[in-house]
Amino acid sequence: MQVHIVHVHPEPASFNGAMTRAARESLACEGHNVTLSDLYAQGFDPVERGEHYSPRVDGGTFSPLAEQRHASEAGQLPADVAREIERLERADLVIFQFPLWWHQMPAMLKGWMDRVFVNGGLYTSRMRYERGYFKGRRAIASLTTGAPAAAMGPGGRGGDIERLLWPVHYSLHYMGFAVLPPFLAFGVAGHGYSYADDGAFDALLNGHLENWKSRLETIAHDEPLSFPGWGDWDGEGAALTT
Amino acid sequence: MQVHIVHVHPEPASFNGAMTRAARESLACEGHNVTLSDLYAQGFDPVERGEHYSPRVDGGTFSPLAEQRHASEAGQLPADVAREIERLERADLVIFQFPLWWHQMPAMLKGWMDRVFVNGGLYTSRMRYERGYFKGRRAIASLTTGAPAAAMGPGGRGGDIERLLWPVHYSLHYMGFAVLPPFLAFGVAGHGYSYADDGAFDALLNGHLENWKSRLETIAHDEPLSFPGWGDWDGEGAALTT
Repeated sequence: MQVHIVHVHPEPASFNGAMTRAARESLACEGHNVTLSDLYAQGFDPVERGEHYSPRVDGGTFSPLAEQRHASEAGQLPADVAREIERLERADLVIFQFPLWWHQMPAMLKGWMDRVFVNGGLYTSRMRYERGYFKGRRAIASLTTGAPAAAMGPGGRGGDIERLLWPVHYSLHYMGFAVLPPFLAFGVAGHGYSYADDGAFDALLNGHLENWKSRLETIAHDEPLSFPGWGDWDGEGAALTT
Repeated sequence: MQVHIVHVHPEPASFNGAMTRAARESLACEGHNVTLSDLYAQGFDPVERGEHYSPRVDGGTFSPLAEQRHASEAGQLPADVAREIERLERADLVIFQFPLWWHQMPAMLKGWMDRVFVNGGLYTSRMRYERGYFKGRRAIASLTTGAPAAAMGPGGRGGDIERLLWPVHYSLHYMGFAVLPPFLAFGVAGHGYSYADDGAFDALLNGHLENWKSRLETIAHDEPLSFPGWGDWDGEGAALTT
């Protein structure tokens, strides 16, 4: 497999950093090719705005969708966006490694989606969901949370993790990816901060790393999550009554 | 009331821009004081990273939570973050105006949360949920979607809007806000792009603007949404069986 990792954490020595290093090593040992987008290290700009587009289809009013579509068709996408798309196009599996911040992805990763999943080039009103651009490819979210697993079930204090991840999973489904069940490293306090002097905490982290490596060994055979598709909607996009 | 609007759109001439202008005018006419954070216009940096903190509690490894806590306690928060907090502290109601991009907030707003809701100063393990820092204040998400309303119900093509907004609503609940039902402007195609030559589309937009103004007239009396609270969890944060 060709595997691409989109890695999002400001601190290389974080636990998220260790997760990505473990994934690279483990996947390479299994004979896979691994590429990496380390968004903080690259200095990726996650803010979609008019300045990214030159020339503009409309130099007056900035419409993200119109500029994305025009730049896609004209082969004039921003260089950093074009590079991310090339990496995705080569990948059979994309791993998103990030800490859960405020019940969602960090802004850096959200903005990567805002800018990289370009209208026109990577999706249209017809090229979506199971007809999406990345059809046949797989994606997985691997994330850390500060809260323990007990607090992240239905009704729990940290929020039901399945519910929290639904929007990002649905975006990946929109793009055509087969979305694998996420890998969840709970109880990683401090948004990935490493507490090297705490033996029990180190044991927790080492357990997560070993579980992640084990998961990666068999990931090619994982059953994807289920989402609604074209056969489930009427012409307006409403759910068909069944 | 003191009302603060956090406005997020790269284009002032967008429909989101019109929504914020309508809110300012309408609220002022009702006798309320209105302040505004226009995040794109301010050039707000939504990326949490070590460079924002000086001096650092740990100049080696960057832990967002540790630096936020330290900067809060030392009165050394980044100037742009301190300014946003001061505006929130003065507000009885906070309006978040944004387009739905990839089933969530734009990165600009997500990063505002990543940076402004600081550990230590604005929340601790005890100062959360109904004991949160902004207890007694109200917040509302007012957003635009490209998809029509029909596609954004349960099982719909655009994703169930209640499900999509749950994470951001839960973050606001975490901070102590009473979260009001969102204001939803469906069918605003093009992420807020204004199609001035289309009469039917203009009528749709004008209808949204009028509905928004009407909603604002009575917003002080809106019943907030319900979320789990401290009485619903055991010591680990799991939902109590009822």
